[in-house]
Amino acid sequence: MIELEPIGRVRTDAAEVPRSWTISEVKGELVIDQKYLEGIKSIHPGEKIVVIFHFHQSMPFTSTDLTQHPRGDLDRPKKGVFSLCSPFRPNPIGMSVLTVTAVKDNVIAVKSLDMIDGTPILDIKPYR
Amino acid sequence: MIELEPIGRVRTDAAEVPRSWTISEVKGELVIDQKYLEGIKSIHPGEKIVVIFHFHQSMPFTSTDLTQHPRGDLDRPKKGVFSLCSPFRPNPIGMSVLTVTAVKDNVIAVKSLDMIDGTPILDIKPYR
Repeated sequence: MIELEPIGRVRTDAAEVPRSWTISEVKGELVIDQKYLEGIKSIHPGEKIVVIFHFHQSMPFTSTDLTQHPRGDLDRPKKGVFSLCSPFRPNPIGMSVLTVTAVKDNVIAVKSLDMIDGTPILDIKPYR
Repeated sequence: MIELEPIGRVRTDAAEVPRSWTISEVKGELVIDQKYLEGIKSIHPGEKIVVIFHFHQSMPFTSTDLTQHPRGDLDRPKKGVFSLCSPFRPNPIGMSVLTVTAVKDNVIAVKSLDMIDGTPILDIKPYR
């Protein structure tokens, strides 16, 4: 087993978020724990970043989730879970590419958010 | 704390792998646990996939790793860890974009590998 601890949390006023960052215009903030402040000092406005997060409200994965209808659309044929971005997956890890709009202290303002308020952030990486 | 369990392991003969998938031509295989076999059925040769993995041989992270020289090159100024792909990070999670060359049973053959033999795989997602 691998144990991870969040480095921060998502903060957003949006009551609903799109299913994918590719179609999202939602704004929000990544509030990073103070102890990691120095780790975000090279992140600048205008940049794209990869954010790895925990689908913390997903139901536990069961073998019936191994194939799923894309976006829950029953009209579309089921695909293997590893070809989908569904939050119902063996390890409930999400990945989004967000655009940084501002950085102040330990708070990174972003757009194209597809995570709900309170989502635990596990990692941030440069986008390539 | 968030607990994750590998869905499979990397298999490669390469004694050394490049630091990044962006410059790698190394070939290898993703050997997925049999219980997830149905989950990979929509992955096909020629496709690019996002692979999330565990940097299982990284030393524990300490606050001195919050800033690091890119690629360990002392001539380059230190950057914040969240702007680097370094394996030394608060949560030792890696992300690579690999190209699928073949799929047979529970084994996905890939190229542009930057993970060492035995690396635990946590998730596979479609590349967008």
